[in-house]
Amino acid sequence: MNILITNDDGIHSAGLITLAQEISKIARVTVVAPDRERSATAHAITMHKPLRVEKVDIPDCNALGWMINGTPSDCVKLALEALLDFTPDIVLSGINSGPNLGTDVIYSGTVSAAIEAALSGVPSIALSIVGHGNVSFKNAAIFTKKLCLQILNHIFPRDSLLNINIPSVEPEAIEGIAITHLGTIRYKNSFDRRTDPRGKVYYWLAGEAIGRNDDKGSDVWAVKNNYISITPLLFDLTKYDIIENIKKWNLQI
Amino acid sequence: MNILITNDDGIHSAGLITLAQEISKIARVTVVAPDRERSATAHAITMHKPLRVEKVDIPDCNALGWMINGTPSDCVKLALEALLDFTPDIVLSGINSGPNLGTDVIYSGTVSAAIEAALSGVPSIALSIVGHGNVSFKNAAIFTKKLCLQILNHIFPRDSLLNINIPSVEPEAIEGIAITHLGTIRYKNSFDRRTDPRGKVYYWLAGEAIGRNDDKGSDVWAVKNNYISITPLLFDLTKYDIIENIKKWNLQI
Repeated sequence: MNILITNDDGIHSAGLITLAQEISKIARVTVVAPDRERSATAHAITMHKPLRVEKVDIPDCNALGWMINGTPSDCVKLALEALLDFTPDIVLSGINSGPNLGTDVIYSGTVSAAIEAALSGVPSIALSIVGHGNVSFKNAAIFTKKLCLQILNHIFPRDSLLNINIPSVEPEAIEGIAITHLGTIRYKNSFDRRTDPRGKVYYWLAGEAIGRNDDKGSDVWAVKNNYISITPLLFDLTKYDIIENIKKWNLQI
Repeated sequence: MNILITNDDGIHSAGLITLAQEISKIARVTVVAPDRERSATAHAITMHKPLRVEKVDIPDCNALGWMINGTPSDCVKLALEALLDFTPDIVLSGINSGPNLGTDVIYSGTVSAAIEAALSGVPSIALSIVGHGNVSFKNAAIFTKKLCLQILNHIFPRDSLLNINIPSVEPEAIEGIAITHLGTIRYKNSFDRRTDPRGKVYYWLAGEAIGRNDDKGSDVWAVKNNYISITPLLFDLTKYDIIENIKKWNLQI
């Protein structure tokens, strides 16, 4: 099995290294990841400057590592179209430090890397751990390893990918796996208006979540209740169910 | 009517200025747009540095203009949550120079600005002109003005937005309006591998489109046949129809 690993926290992040170490026990692992943190880059790609590629050793792991001065999407594009002479069986993006839940996935570099792989027809999984700080990537990496083996038995859904959020708790505290839909996270008053040392105004995104729609069956609900959340995502943004409705508007040129 | 205009080509781009001039004939227009081109930024947001706001005159137009050192999504967020003391009736993003069709919308700063508005519950429209170079923004802006007036008569679909691509042809060559779904655009061998003056290898995204799935009813088909394409888009990325299927995989921790 060939597995490509990327992320948006950068190639030196603990989440990626722990994942590569664990997955290399069951597969030939290649890491192609950004040279530094690229959080909230969403699906940005680099068009107006060249990308540099540098070989990097992944500690305590026989994975082949490449570091790129680009975004998570750049890494997947470059890996699949230029660096690798094979198509990986699975692309894993993560393990991200911090959740990628609900409407927030639209900003996520972790998720966008998985979308990029899915766009190229490669099964892909975005992985995040819920809880910043003292999180255990090890347990999450072991779970991911088991999951990869189980997923091989199934036909991976076309035109889609999986977004997985893993609560950062002891394994015995995990209630199970929930197949979920995206919940909603609402933010308010999320900019601080400040004055710089020279008296000029600037704004800083604070981004305080004020409401989480944790309806049962959503990813937000799942991780709150210590379930591992698996959400199937799509990348065809068409809202098919309102096409006929809008046709009836009878819009004129 | 209050209309907020943004884009990803920057506040000085002809597409935005022409749109603001035309729309200000029917509405109070506020422009909040990036200080420079931000194409292919997708839904990136700025978290790790401050945002600066500067007032800018929009030529031959009484619109209020603000220039931001951020991404299109930053502009919409900052406008709705900090700069404006009202909620606009519609957010327009564009007019982008060049198409935003098919699977490419996932990379689009133009579309992401409209998604950002829709996330906040504001009706929004992404606007692009198909054809680089000698394009007529004027005709596209006049069409958009008419469209805004027509849309007010309808309940704008919740949790969605409109993605509009306008062929750059004379008005009499436009065949009509088509309500479409996203087509597929496939790229191949899209990185040039080059050597810099010091002998080091670099890669540059070339991004040649090799296949356009222009099935009838898709946006790709529509603009190819000189229709104005209107595609309703969603921002809930859940692939609902395979949730039950994945539950049957019976995945274990």
